[in-house]
Amino acid sequence: MADESLFFSPQSKWIQAKDEAPQIVISSRVRLARNLAETPFPNRLLHEQAETVLYKIKNAFSDLYGYRFFKLKDLPKEKQQLLAAKHLISPLLIEQAAIAGFAVNEDESTSAMINEEDHLRLQALLPGLQLTRASKLAFALDDALESKLNFAFDENLGYLSACPTNLGTGLRASVMLHLPALVLSKQAQDVFDSLPRLGLTVRGLYGEGTEARGNLFQVSNQTTLGSSEKDLIKHLEDITNRISLQEQQTRSFLLEKHPGYLEDNIWRSFAILRHARRIGEEEMAERLSLLRLGVDLGMIKKLSGKAVSKLMLAGSTPFIQAQSTQKLSPDGVDTERANLLRKNLSYLKDGDSDE
Amino acid sequence: MADESLFFSPQSKWIQAKDEAPQIVISSRVRLARNLAETPFPNRLLHEQAETVLYKIKNAFSDLYGYRFFKLKDLPKEKQQLLAAKHLISPLLIEQAAIAGFAVNEDESTSAMINEEDHLRLQALLPGLQLTRASKLAFALDDALESKLNFAFDENLGYLSACPTNLGTGLRASVMLHLPALVLSKQAQDVFDSLPRLGLTVRGLYGEGTEARGNLFQVSNQTTLGSSEKDLIKHLEDITNRISLQEQQTRSFLLEKHPGYLEDNIWRSFAILRHARRIGEEEMAERLSLLRLGVDLGMIKKLSGKAVSKLMLAGSTPFIQAQSTQKLSPDGVDTERANLLRKNLSYLKDGDSDE
Repeated sequence: MADESLFFSPQSKWIQAKDEAPQIVISSRVRLARNLAETPFPNRLLHEQAETVLYKIKNAFSDLYGYRFFKLKDLPKEKQQLLAAKHLISPLLIEQAAIAGFAVNEDESTSAMINEEDHLRLQALLPGLQLTRASKLAFALDDALESKLNFAFDENLGYLSACPTNLGTGLRASVMLHLPALVLSKQAQDVFDSLPRLGLTVRGLYGEGTEARGNLFQVSNQTTLGSSEKDLIKHLEDITNRISLQEQQTRSFLLEKHPGYLEDNIWRSFAILRHARRIGEEEMAERLSLLRLGVDLGMIKKLSGKAVSKLMLAGSTPFIQAQSTQKLSPDGVDTERANLLRKNLSYLKDGDSDE
Repeated sequence: MADESLFFSPQSKWIQAKDEAPQIVISSRVRLARNLAETPFPNRLLHEQAETVLYKIKNAFSDLYGYRFFKLKDLPKEKQQLLAAKHLISPLLIEQAAIAGFAVNEDESTSAMINEEDHLRLQALLPGLQLTRASKLAFALDDALESKLNFAFDENLGYLSACPTNLGTGLRASVMLHLPALVLSKQAQDVFDSLPRLGLTVRGLYGEGTEARGNLFQVSNQTTLGSSEKDLIKHLEDITNRISLQEQQTRSFLLEKHPGYLEDNIWRSFAILRHARRIGEEEMAERLSLLRLGVDLGMIKKLSGKAVSKLMLAGSTPFIQAQSTQKLSPDGVDTERANLLRKNLSYLKDGDSDE
């Protein structure tokens, strides 16, 4: 493959947000679970059957314009991890690399995992709150593939899937929310506790079973059965707007009632990112979160939310490791991460951004 | 008093260190305890007797060139605290302000507390390791006063004092040591534990009963009986050199065996001092300690140990409060402290000091 930017460029469609403040909804994602008819789900597939699934789906993609297709096992582990860091594939797909595949379009807005939990997981991932647009992209890809593949479908249950929570529409919509003020004011847990009653669930930065990091939370619909796709998306959009408003109100509250508190936290984060000689990935995420808040509040100028997202990706361990010709020690990664942050933030001369 | 710099200037003789690196011995102090013959010690003085003591000593000082004399009760509390921040008087003297006095020469190298624990505590305080010079200054003042005052003296016990540990020579010599590497490497406690066996004791930044702060420790002789003044001073000087060497060796060890560790810690401290919007006195002291270490190691240029000492004094709560026309809240003090640090470190453009 000539174009290695898919792997090595710390860029992706979902990062290309407009320069609007505040950026509370970082990205919107719609995933569709699809399975081939009369074929066992991936966790029960014999190796040969898995190859057949890969072959059929690869063929279907080969007719689509602009898509690249990979067998995971043909990609070095390092490249697999770069794709995961970009939110294009899941950790589970990497675990199942022996039977797994991956397809992606040019701007990385739509992609597919093959033989993850289902035979096919289609994904559309866009910056900001664009669930409707994302669902349109996902369904367009779904339609294009459905004309070439025979999906398992039941008149009563809808699309069949390996996990019952994906039955029906097979649609999982999610938003990545940046909620530093709700976290700082210790309201985030209350908000999250209210979500299951609303049919929603909250997850960490890299999906199920992962930790929240940098005050980023993924909120998605819990079940996909019994509602129309449109209703699911409308519902998540409504709740997203409500949480987003609460985050904004809390920012205003903190600014008004505790003057200096946010400011001090934001500038300290800037300071560490700008000067540290070693920094772990988690600390970077926490400090970039506050930097993003500073951008949102107009305190930090000459920096955009997009640039913050890009730094977070460029500073992730897979990207740092990929920049080096030799295998780095954990200390080495932390040092290179600090170097990258210093270099990228050095244009923010203290005199320009300060005061 | 026309010249208010005694109170309001964050300067004192002991801060005027030479620009030599490393500065591990920040200052040297010699204190002499003296009491007037046939007069109860201060803790048993009637108010009228205390006034007589003050009167006699004030008279003695009035014949000495360049000394100013104050009754503590004539100074507003705020000014008393400025003197304490400068290490010229003790917290105990402030507690006993009703009967206490204070005398000081022009460059603040020699001073005296009247009616603290003893009728008279003479102090010489100099930058760096200058115990012999400090003792000469203290004894010169002692001689000058002894020609006018009748000190309590016993042929066997020597100078009498309120506290038995000050009996004999009445001399307490101390050094203020900056030991960040011994603290970071967790060796400091072992060093301090060995001191009592050597007849020495360690105290916090503002003497007995105060906490160490900013990796600064005051080491002094424990008793003053049974040794000559010269031996006491030689002994403290030897041990000081030994601790100082251990600190330097530990710095080298850390630089060699844990490359990047000190550097990261130092630059993070610089970053916070340079950008915080609020900072407590204790955090300031910790971070200035690492900044001083950065100066010692040549990492932070265009800054001297002297400048760090001055910042620590200027950023102390009494000095911050004194800069304001109104009474500041604790948050207000922390904000003004951060403003002062930012202002004073802003000339260290990141581009100049960084890399």
